[in-house]
Amino acid sequence: MKKPTVGIICGSKSDLPLLDKAAKQLDEFGISYKVTVASAHRSPELAIAFAKSAEKKYDLIIAAAGMAAALPGVVAGHTILPVIGIPVFSKALKGLDALFAIVQMPSGVPVATVTIDGAKNAAVLAAQILSLKYPQLKKKLKDFKKQLAGK
Amino acid sequence: MKKPTVGIICGSKSDLPLLDKAAKQLDEFGISYKVTVASAHRSPELAIAFAKSAEKKYDLIIAAAGMAAALPGVVAGHTILPVIGIPVFSKALKGLDALFAIVQMPSGVPVATVTIDGAKNAAVLAAQILSLKYPQLKKKLKDFKKQLAGK
Amino acid sequence: MKKPTVGIICGSKSDLPLLDKAAKQLDEFGISYKVTVASAHRSPELAIAFAKSAEKKYDLIIAAAGMAAALPGVVAGHTILPVIGIPVFSKALKGLDALFAIVQMPSGVPVATVTIDGAKNAAVLAAQILSLKYPQLKKKLKDFKKQLAGK
Amino acid sequence: MKKPTVGIICGSKSDLPLLDKAAKQLDEFGISYKVTVASAHRSPELAIAFAKSAEKKYDLIIAAAGMAAALPGVVAGHTILPVIGIPVFSKALKGLDALFAIVQMPSGVPVATVTIDGAKNAAVLAAQILSLKYPQLKKKLKDFKKQLAGK
Amino acid sequence: MKKPTVGIICGSKSDLPLLDKAAKQLDEFGISYKVTVASAHRSPELAIAFAKSAEKKYDLIIAAAGMAAALPGVVAGHTILPVIGIPVFSKALKGLDALFAIVQMPSGVPVATVTIDGAKNAAVLAAQILSLKYPQLKKKLKDFKKQLAGK
Amino acid sequence: MKKPTVGIICGSKSDLPLLDKAAKQLDEFGISYKVTVASAHRSPELAIAFAKSAEKKYDLIIAAAGMAAALPGVVAGHTILPVIGIPVFSKALKGLDALFAIVQMPSGVPVATVTIDGAKNAAVLAAQILSLKYPQLKKKLKDFKKQLAGK
Amino acid sequence: MKKPTVGIICGSKSDLPLLDKAAKQLDEFGISYKVTVASAHRSPELAIAFAKSAEKKYDLIIAAAGMAAALPGVVAGHTILPVIGIPVFSKALKGLDALFAIVQMPSGVPVATVTIDGAKNAAVLAAQILSLKYPQLKKKLKDFKKQLAGK
Amino acid sequence: MKKPTVGIICGSKSDLPLLDKAAKQLDEFGISYKVTVASAHRSPELAIAFAKSAEKKYDLIIAAAGMAAALPGVVAGHTILPVIGIPVFSKALKGLDALFAIVQMPSGVPVATVTIDGAKNAAVLAAQILSLKYPQLKKKLKDFKKQLAGK
Repeated sequence: MKKPTVGIICGSKSDLPLLDKAAKQLDEFGISYKVTVASAHRSPELAIAFAKSAEKKYDLIIAAAGMAAALPGVVAGHTILPVIGIPVFSKALKGLDALFAIVQMPSGVPVATVTIDGAKNAAVLAAQILSLKYPQLKKKLKDFKKQLAGK
Repeated sequence: MKKPTVGIICGSKSDLPLLDKAAKQLDEFGISYKVTVASAHRSPELAIAFAKSAEKKYDLIIAAAGMAAALPGVVAGHTILPVIGIPVFSKALKGLDALFAIVQMPSGVPVATVTIDGAKNAAVLAAQILSLKYPQLKKKLKDFKKQLAGK
Repeated sequence: MKKPTVGIICGSKSDLPLLDKAAKQLDEFGISYKVTVASAHRSPELAIAFAKSAEKKYDLIIAAAGMAAALPGVVAGHTILPVIGIPVFSKALKGLDALFAIVQMPSGVPVATVTIDGAKNAAVLAAQILSLKYPQLKKKLKDFKKQLAGK
Repeated sequence: MKKPTVGIICGSKSDLPLLDKAAKQLDEFGISYKVTVASAHRSPELAIAFAKSAEKKYDLIIAAAGMAAALPGVVAGHTILPVIGIPVFSKALKGLDALFAIVQMPSGVPVATVTIDGAKNAAVLAAQILSLKYPQLKKKLKDFKKQLAGK
Repeated sequence: MKKPTVGIICGSKSDLPLLDKAAKQLDEFGISYKVTVASAHRSPELAIAFAKSAEKKYDLIIAAAGMAAALPGVVAGHTILPVIGIPVFSKALKGLDALFAIVQMPSGVPVATVTIDGAKNAAVLAAQILSLKYPQLKKKLKDFKKQLAGK
Repeated sequence: MKKPTVGIICGSKSDLPLLDKAAKQLDEFGISYKVTVASAHRSPELAIAFAKSAEKKYDLIIAAAGMAAALPGVVAGHTILPVIGIPVFSKALKGLDALFAIVQMPSGVPVATVTIDGAKNAAVLAAQILSLKYPQLKKKLKDFKKQLAGK
Repeated sequence: MKKPTVGIICGSKSDLPLLDKAAKQLDEFGISYKVTVASAHRSPELAIAFAKSAEKKYDLIIAAAGMAAALPGVVAGHTILPVIGIPVFSKALKGLDALFAIVQMPSGVPVATVTIDGAKNAAVLAAQILSLKYPQLKKKLKDFKKQLAGK
Repeated sequence: MKKPTVGIICGSKSDLPLLDKAAKQLDEFGISYKVTVASAHRSPELAIAFAKSAEKKYDLIIAAAGMAAALPGVVAGHTILPVIGIPVFSKALKGLDALFAIVQMPSGVPVATVTIDGAKNAAVLAAQILSLKYPQLKKKLKDFKKQLAGK
């Protein structure tokens, strides 16, 4: 990859409005991305195909899921790319179920978990990680940090 | 299958002592089983191969996992067999993480969740389910229920 | 029983709209069912009569209850049929109370617990279990799984 | 009943050491009691028989149970006697499951819930309730309160 | 007291609509009551005066409080009457704070805790307790139980 | 008061080893204190007498309690002195019950809550508060902060 | 400082309406204050500059923050002034996250934590603390307490 | 930096045995690291100096802290490097407090949170991130993943 590129995946179309916040922030950093909807439970073939082919297409992965949120961990199980996980808020357990299901990964297969519904934070973390390979992002991150401080 | 047969899967060798309780109870009911160790995160190929071939080998599945316990749900995503999930106790969140990760499945892909560390209950539920197909189990279940009441 | 038949029971009339989702899904699978309203606490005679006579009428049971959700466990105590429990969301503890009261069954008397408010999942699990005895359901479940994946 | 009499019931023999603390306190108040072991799930006939015949034998009931602690509520469903419920501590959820399963009773069927593992408190509450009918207990309760204050 | 009489106390005027449900149920049972608003924290003199004089005026006490719900326990500390505690729902912790603050009483000073926002259940429990002294309530409780079952 | 003086109160003798850590830290700051054991539930007269007379004897109060930890709030209800509350760890709910019961005070009656089992922190907070009146403590607090940093 | 003066800090402009309740109460006590918006995470330089210069400007600090509420603790790390922390309610975890992040401070660096969203309580606690140095506040606090009791 | 280099920081010397697991795993990947002990609360100058100078010395940061675990977030506030946060288990709240304090970061300042006590996972995530810049790590990660699967 010549340009920083993120693979975004979520378990349900209902997660897309949340992921728009990640997309918008990636746009601001000039980072490319592609969004895939594939569930670890309902369309696992798709999710696994996404994960297995990710290394050729993407620098890293952002995965969002709610409730028994297996998707980020399952994707992490099939790739060596860093996987950022977003626990999605839901009615009954308020995202606590998704948080536990995403962050409590077993030894050897981490998911970089961010705030419940933290789509923007997922994008910022993606930019920070990508800046190791694409140093031009460092200046953008510093400008972003200044803007944050100025708010 | 001529005889009732259960596929048992767990994410880690450390879960095997817990699953012995399920195995022992299945033995008492005269139900065959085979135990596979395969993690949804560390050895996903194995776990998925298990799930995909399960319908030919087993009548139903018992899956145990702790923490971000994706295994029961992932197996359920790849088969139409009933999947019984056992949330495994662990040090920090005491099995509450596994309970949430197993029971809070999205619409369309259920896991039949039992008690935290409820290996024996998984076996009894398996026998109840198998008794639909193998009516000889009904008498055994009634005897078992009488024994329970007599304790 | 010549046809797959499910006994559905809930503790309160207020649970009926939730159970409609289960009923609708059972209809799609061509599974018969009958709904009974009986509370383990307010109309226990009815609930126990339901449970004791269930084996003659039904292949399995779906039981929904909220708060101190004793109904699924009490029914399970009086029958050897598989009992699927649905924890119902409520205002204060959001269904966490019902989840604990349904899933944490003692050794020997399992309840196959599904998602909080997971009426549709209860129906799918019912179909999976029934398919052991009624193999014609296997094809329907495979079609259903394909539809899920296609969403 | 001429003398204050309490029916004590617990779901499992493993609860008996806890109930000894209630018994000892009832002894100190000169209150009679009988202990029955009967599970709402494993020996429901026994539990219901206990509850149905309680009004003739006892002034009130103390019921202890752990995990999916249905026993106090089930007993309360079959009697108009006051039922005091003791949530029992257990390994995974530390008695929080039992607390929710006992206290969150639906409208119309209360259980007077005490502290997790609060067997002594159940006995004191029993004495307070019994003192409405047996006024000689009032003096004993006042002495008890003085002793508490003096500790 | 010739007639059954309940002292009702709550920590804040905002609890009065909830207590109306208790009052209405007590009315149906023909039980007298008086409502006092006094906070263990804001108007402790009043709350303690209520508790100290309760034995002369009331057969038992119903106390409702939210958040750091000390009122039921504080009242119980100053009287030998049975104290029924109602944990009140509030915005942040949904009544879980009040539940813990009411039910987890130390050894020797019980509070008979009911459902979160369980004002009606408090009234039913009151009637059950009062029926020990006022046997005419037993018939009313049996009729009430029949009505419940008939719903 | 010429010298900084703290009134320490706890609900049970079993809390004394914990309060030794507070006492030791107050000693290091040269702050006087007196420890009283009085329970808001078991010996409320004592606790209230302590609170009512506190303004004449002490500059501020440290109150420790576990479970339904009413003591800090009750003391705060009877005095205008600042009250520092220490939630005490206990077996079942691990101090979470005490934390909720101490921190979730209603509007108008705050308790300055510190860490679960945070006796040393209570003493440091006491010194910080006392330093407003006794400026010699400022230097000691700065030295203490340097020592902390040097650890 | 000749007059009692409080430094108020919050992590986000969205916290200002909540802090108005604290400000209004400080006004009623005749206590001066200045509000600063500075985040421990987004504008840490500002937050640390606030904390380091606080001793010269303020008698004590009120700090409000939500979610991973580091601000009160970070401010406490840079000053010997008493720091009152207000955990702010938010959508997913309802302020429980902020409560844990504020109250569970390590040994040596306390934050005086008040009720979730307890801005008014923070102001009352501030007045209580300030009354050690500014005795004229004692009368105002007594009048305030009388008003509370009269409500 | 010519070689992949990680800055590891923890809040307390008591966290060092946990971090040894991260160090050992980084060693296996051939990744350099330096461990600093600095608390966001007790030695904030040190922690901030670490964070401010990190960009020159390190490719990314691993930060571990328990209880009111501000350290990872505070470090993230002062650098644009990716920060991996490890919530540390502790006695009362079992690491749930640290998890909330680390993962629930506000918009704009993410921390890549891993499993409670997940030191090894922090190291694996570090290697995954570093592999964007140091492609030689990709092969090591693939070998590691194969070893995991083979266990």
